[in-house]
Amino acid sequence: MAVEKHIIKMAQAAKQAAHELSLVSTGTKNAALRKMAHALVRRKSYLISENKKDLKVAEKGNYSKALIERLRLNDKVIKEMAKCLIATAHLKDPVGAVLTSFKRPNGLLIKKVRTPIGVIGIIFESRPNVVSDCVGLCLKSGNAVILKGGREAFYSNKAIFQVLRDALQGTGVPPEAVYLISSVDREAVNVLLKLDKYIDLIIPRGGEGLIEFVAKHSRIPVIKHYKGICHVYVSDHADLNKAHNICYNAKVQKPGVCNAMESMLVHKDAAIRFLPGMVNDLKKAGVEIRGCPVTRRIIKKGIKKASNKDWETEYLDLILSVKVVAGTQEAIGHINTHGSHHSDAIVTENRKEAEEFLKSVDSACLYVNASTRFTDGYQFGFGAEIGISTDKLHARGPMALEELTTYKYLVFGKGQIRT
Amino acid sequence: MAVEKHIIKMAQAAKQAAHELSLVSTGTKNAALRKMAHALVRRKSYLISENKKDLKVAEKGNYSKALIERLRLNDKVIKEMAKCLIATAHLKDPVGAVLTSFKRPNGLLIKKVRTPIGVIGIIFESRPNVVSDCVGLCLKSGNAVILKGGREAFYSNKAIFQVLRDALQGTGVPPEAVYLISSVDREAVNVLLKLDKYIDLIIPRGGEGLIEFVAKHSRIPVIKHYKGICHVYVSDHADLNKAHNICYNAKVQKPGVCNAMESMLVHKDAAIRFLPGMVNDLKKAGVEIRGCPVTRRIIKKGIKKASNKDWETEYLDLILSVKVVAGTQEAIGHINTHGSHHSDAIVTENRKEAEEFLKSVDSACLYVNASTRFTDGYQFGFGAEIGISTDKLHARGPMALEELTTYKYLVFGKGQIRT
Repeated sequence: MAVEKHIIKMAQAAKQAAHELSLVSTGTKNAALRKMAHALVRRKSYLISENKKDLKVAEKGNYSKALIERLRLNDKVIKEMAKCLIATAHLKDPVGAVLTSFKRPNGLLIKKVRTPIGVIGIIFESRPNVVSDCVGLCLKSGNAVILKGGREAFYSNKAIFQVLRDALQGTGVPPEAVYLISSVDREAVNVLLKLDKYIDLIIPRGGEGLIEFVAKHSRIPVIKHYKGICHVYVSDHADLNKAHNICYNAKVQKPGVCNAMESMLVHKDAAIRFLPGMVNDLKKAGVEIRGCPVTRRIIKKGIKKASNKDWETEYLDLILSVKVVAGTQEAIGHINTHGSHHSDAIVTENRKEAEEFLKSVDSACLYVNASTRFTDGYQFGFGAEIGISTDKLHARGPMALEELTTYKYLVFGKGQIRT
Repeated sequence: MAVEKHIIKMAQAAKQAAHELSLVSTGTKNAALRKMAHALVRRKSYLISENKKDLKVAEKGNYSKALIERLRLNDKVIKEMAKCLIATAHLKDPVGAVLTSFKRPNGLLIKKVRTPIGVIGIIFESRPNVVSDCVGLCLKSGNAVILKGGREAFYSNKAIFQVLRDALQGTGVPPEAVYLISSVDREAVNVLLKLDKYIDLIIPRGGEGLIEFVAKHSRIPVIKHYKGICHVYVSDHADLNKAHNICYNAKVQKPGVCNAMESMLVHKDAAIRFLPGMVNDLKKAGVEIRGCPVTRRIIKKGIKKASNKDWETEYLDLILSVKVVAGTQEAIGHINTHGSHHSDAIVTENRKEAEEFLKSVDSACLYVNASTRFTDGYQFGFGAEIGISTDKLHARGPMALEELTTYKYLVFGKGQIRT
């Protein structure tokens, strides 16, 4: 009950602060972002010492090496966080932009203008730099934000948050526009998800369990940042050299992220030419291959049998499922059925085939002759990102400043009435 | 359980049909809309005789006159329904439109294009013309639709739906792209709201009870079409003649709709000049006035005392709450606190004051010197509308074809990989 009361008070104050923030000038917001960036660098030894407490728990708890690395704060990571805040200050303020403007026959002038959404709740796991990235993007887009991190980064999140909030004092941006729920219980999330009176949007970023819990219990609109089961389809019309480079990059360059390839589909007429060299290089890079029966007939040794579950698994690791398909239609059907509608690529030199793929695959980002690894706000030129939406509503794919806004219609009249 | 199985089958078939429909050409969709329009007119005697069954139940059940009128199908209403389908055929197809297109320094060409959302569930009450309006807009925007109407229009909804679906045969638009759940139990709604695997969006249109039920139980994203507690604020800088006409129009012209004024706010320095004449004319039109203490001091007779509940009530009737306020800030605070973020107006000749109002009031549509009654897809020039969203996410205010779409990013490369 104490937690519940505390979170309700927080949400009420955030709502009030969101209203104030919606009226704050771009210059004031930018100055606040710069002040926060400098504060992070100035107080880095404090941040690193708090981070050590989390690392100690993680090491004792036998967390995976990858997770411990994601948790670690050092000079370089803190500088990156500060740089991201400065970069966000340089981005164009989306608030107030006129999206369309038109005059009606009765003389009414209608303008559709961007406005902040209001109060945004972000529920995330592991990486503590999410705190500063999200605070920066939310404040710049005029939104208040309530953060809820995971148990594994308890001390780090709290320290970063405190440094950022302290820096807001006297900037003109109300410090009540940013909150961190320090309780690590899922019960706190459950309380948050019921506060549709004060909170306008929930963004969950994390594992399957978290996302499903949020989707099930939220009374607030949710934009899910869910898994990426990304495919590359190598057509029989592919330039196999390009295909080789793209598949290698999509799997090997950074396997632990949502835009990495998890499943490779190969046209039956390209398979014999393409697979042996490809599989050889992937194996050299340490990739475990799980193949369909045809794949295992072409490459006799060292390929595990792919189970049905493999086609729907986000490995986030050096593992790849491989399937030989009869043609583009089978590839499209497989991706729409087993994928997660995140990022999928076709490698082909046939324009008509590419168009068919682009039209029929129901994913946020579709690639022709390029690696799926480009699905990223920075790579798209958005400057920064809050994450990658796997939902279809409001925002899809990389989410940055514009995606954190809504709009309202302003109608200018001279006394018009409806007849 | 039989109902549940039936609805799941429906949703699965709709999902498959949505995929097929997303590939159908504009010309084919338009021809299907025209064929549906002609079928409605040709089979009007069947529609009217089925409608009589609903009217009979309604009359026995002592439904309000207004409700019975909303239910009634006659020659004129059926012609209007057909006209709306024809008009929708004339609207520009939103699918495939390129929203932005940009090239990245590494040569990647990125296009953001509109696509259908997928399967849309629409849960509505009373007016049977919703069936044809929604079928027309959803099909034109490439979406499959599952409709669930209210008990009061059981026979009418079923008849209209059957005529429309029969008309789809042989058009190239799959008939499985439209479904009507004929069960009138709320349990059927509950089943529908859990099918996030197949359904992409739920739009509830109706009373408070329905909207709250949907918001509470849905696992699918919801865009609510909720109540309109609309305000007109008459400033001390208003042209009082304009103010008089606007307030009269907003309250009296069609009091039973969501964009009608429910609360009138008047600046204290304008109240003595403005209120007596205004109240007099409203009373002549049969409007019951519920006033704040100052209002009742200015007009001594015939004004009921407004309770706190009045400020948050959507009367949908010839009733008006009236409050005298100290200035623009109080008006803004009152609207943001007690309103429903639908449509609110200021009457003023002072540009700075108007700007303050437009910036600070958190509503979908804001008016300067015009009646709130213009919040309507047709009045905004959108050709038709699925309704008025009172939510902030994905779509806000009048929703038409564009608001029924999402987008995807198409990325064209020449073998680019991420380094």
